[in-house]
Amino acid sequence: MKQSKLFYKTLKENPKDEEAKNARLLIRAGFVDKVMAGVYNYLPLGFRVLKKIENIIREEMNAIGGQEILMPVLHPAENWKKTGRWKSFEQLFKLKGAGNKDLALGPTHEEIVTPLAQKVVFSYKDLPIAVYQIQTKFRNEPRSKSGLLRAREFIMKDLYSFHASEENLEKYYMQVEKAYEKIWQRLGIGKITLKTYASGGDFSKYSHEYQTLCQTGEDEIYVCSKCKVAVNKELINEQSECPECGNKKLEKQNAIEVGNIFKLKTKFSNAFNFKYVDKHGHEKPVVMGCYGIGPSRIMGTLAEIFNDDKGLVWPDNLAPFDIHLINLNKNTNKSEKLYEKLINQGLDVLYDDRLGVSAGEKLAEADLLGIPHRLVVSEKTGEKVEYKKRSEKEVKMLSEDEIIKMLRNKT
Amino acid sequence: MKQSKLFYKTLKENPKDEEAKNARLLIRAGFVDKVMAGVYNYLPLGFRVLKKIENIIREEMNAIGGQEILMPVLHPAENWKKTGRWKSFEQLFKLKGAGNKDLALGPTHEEIVTPLAQKVVFSYKDLPIAVYQIQTKFRNEPRSKSGLLRAREFIMKDLYSFHASEENLEKYYMQVEKAYEKIWQRLGIGKITLKTYASGGDFSKYSHEYQTLCQTGEDEIYVCSKCKVAVNKELINEQSECPECGNKKLEKQNAIEVGNIFKLKTKFSNAFNFKYVDKHGHEKPVVMGCYGIGPSRIMGTLAEIFNDDKGLVWPDNLAPFDIHLINLNKNTNKSEKLYEKLINQGLDVLYDDRLGVSAGEKLAEADLLGIPHRLVVSEKTGEKVEYKKRSEKEVKMLSEDEIIKMLRNKT
Repeated sequence: MKQSKLFYKTLKENPKDEEAKNARLLIRAGFVDKVMAGVYNYLPLGFRVLKKIENIIREEMNAIGGQEILMPVLHPAENWKKTGRWKSFEQLFKLKGAGNKDLALGPTHEEIVTPLAQKVVFSYKDLPIAVYQIQTKFRNEPRSKSGLLRAREFIMKDLYSFHASEENLEKYYMQVEKAYEKIWQRLGIGKITLKTYASGGDFSKYSHEYQTLCQTGEDEIYVCSKCKVAVNKELINEQSECPECGNKKLEKQNAIEVGNIFKLKTKFSNAFNFKYVDKHGHEKPVVMGCYGIGPSRIMGTLAEIFNDDKGLVWPDNLAPFDIHLINLNKNTNKSEKLYEKLINQGLDVLYDDRLGVSAGEKLAEADLLGIPHRLVVSEKTGEKVEYKKRSEKEVKMLSEDEIIKMLRNKT
Repeated sequence: MKQSKLFYKTLKENPKDEEAKNARLLIRAGFVDKVMAGVYNYLPLGFRVLKKIENIIREEMNAIGGQEILMPVLHPAENWKKTGRWKSFEQLFKLKGAGNKDLALGPTHEEIVTPLAQKVVFSYKDLPIAVYQIQTKFRNEPRSKSGLLRAREFIMKDLYSFHASEENLEKYYMQVEKAYEKIWQRLGIGKITLKTYASGGDFSKYSHEYQTLCQTGEDEIYVCSKCKVAVNKELINEQSECPECGNKKLEKQNAIEVGNIFKLKTKFSNAFNFKYVDKHGHEKPVVMGCYGIGPSRIMGTLAEIFNDDKGLVWPDNLAPFDIHLINLNKNTNKSEKLYEKLINQGLDVLYDDRLGVSAGEKLAEADLLGIPHRLVVSEKTGEKVEYKKRSEKEVKMLSEDEIIKMLRNKT
């Protein structure tokens, strides 16, 4: 992609109406644009990152047998009244449709997926089964000042599983835990993302959140000094030691909730009278689990974590482009040829072909965008090309062939 | 995918609350599920078709330089008040957000993309530029009885282009026309989809719709008997001859609008005071075009067209799976091996591995689902496998190797 054609605009200053680092950085670098508090446009740079995050999640959901579907944004009020959440779910957006019909904008999809699964599952032979979607969700947050971390409109992956017994749910729940661990690793936050014990509501002892350690995080968790586990603040009075190793030394830290997994058990199947027939011909309520991850919140989390004082620093597999090729010559003869060579090798290149923009401005903008591998073509570089990793200080002078060989291995 | 694990359920009878053929067929075959009038769940089979449609559109939009972005569902009322459409757009869903803020659910995105482009485009050097999204849209239709053809919540691809002059818009508009022709061809509706002259509103003589001939279509168009062009009913009084060849013989036919392209010119740039600086330093309003296609409506259109009295008949490139492998033996020894072989060849197979379901039921369901290539393994077939195309009557007995060779070429 030629930068002269790219739909983006960087800002030299932080936007005045954003307090959160993730929103400031992503807006300054032209990845997202604010429409109003808690509602954003994803520009091409941000859209590419979002899709890479979603694809990692999708692959791991498919690997544990999740079947992708798409449920709607518009929910009939009846469904929410059946579960009691029409009144109790505070951040539910409500509206009227044709014929004065009460509707909600989905903040989560138990009220839709339960009656849907009820049409598909009848017998123990139909169980277990799991479906997921990657879809836009809504919460009418009273305050929305954390950028992509607490948006009013956001993207969620929500997986729902259906089982004949709690034992079977337990088994699948552990599979999802493993899939989530893989996702955090692939997102580059594996080491700092902790399984965190949180309240299980009125029907389970615990639910589990995945919390990514981050000084600017809104959540407070208590981290076990021995094992990779934490306890959410809401639970710390009743659970003051590590629930896995019994360690009493828990350290308070700030974190961002990037995912959660929840044993719904029969809460929603009871509300919809969703039963299956077991081997002996008896009707039993279906046992459910739900498992969320927010790709847009993860994009915000990555921006909070992967940055320095110059801008964003994307990991290789999540960057909007693999390579940022920057021409500082007065013409594009040499850089254009290198650009063609790189894309012919299947590399994904953002090529700063702009003339009339100063070297300083181009390099500062490259640092702000944070594409991992930077190539500079200038009079100074002669036959060679200057290579620098965004995350490192060292600059190397390499031949075009050396560059192609190296980048094909790295990206 | 093993059919015993697939999240779906077929119906023997038409659903009672649907009049439209597309909804009846897609619901009966387990591709979609109705949540309420005009609002559907896409189940795995339907989701796969939808993604194939979207990918064809995406490829052709990228090929004409469209850059993919994602704009929100929630729109601030201010933007719609600026263009006057807060009052004039009848099917606009309206709601209140936190702080009693007036919001709309986007039925189209001129009110968002114009102020967005205004942040990116300043000079003639920034033009032309084009962005698009594939996103969920909303229209509060008073009646929604046509299944996926007139839903209240639906998927749209909307492309917006920005230009320095009407001449430049004209040039791009013709490029989009060509891209749209390619899309209809790839969707298998090239021959029956006609460029149709429609009202241009108060600022252009014409807009253009793409209408797919279909007896059950809601639209009435007047088709030129000489060239591949039509005139929409709304325009026929003022435009009673073919606008391209002057032919006066126009034949009335029913059709479904699958796309539209529109020269917005300066309507929206004027509303937002969106100007660029030309070569001579003068400020001028940006000239705009917009170009829509509805992937979910297209899925409905394909269901209206590609069917027979037994069910759906998908074209190869849009089917949810390439191959439907059906085991009629009492055990799965032979079929399981063939299934493995086929998927190892990279073929996308739905494998009916169910035991205890009758041959008649399996074959009837296969016809209802409409996967293009059917393979049957039974006692009758011995070492060979029975092959049948969904769209043809002929049944062939082939060896596994012959089948793999043939299907690798076809799919």
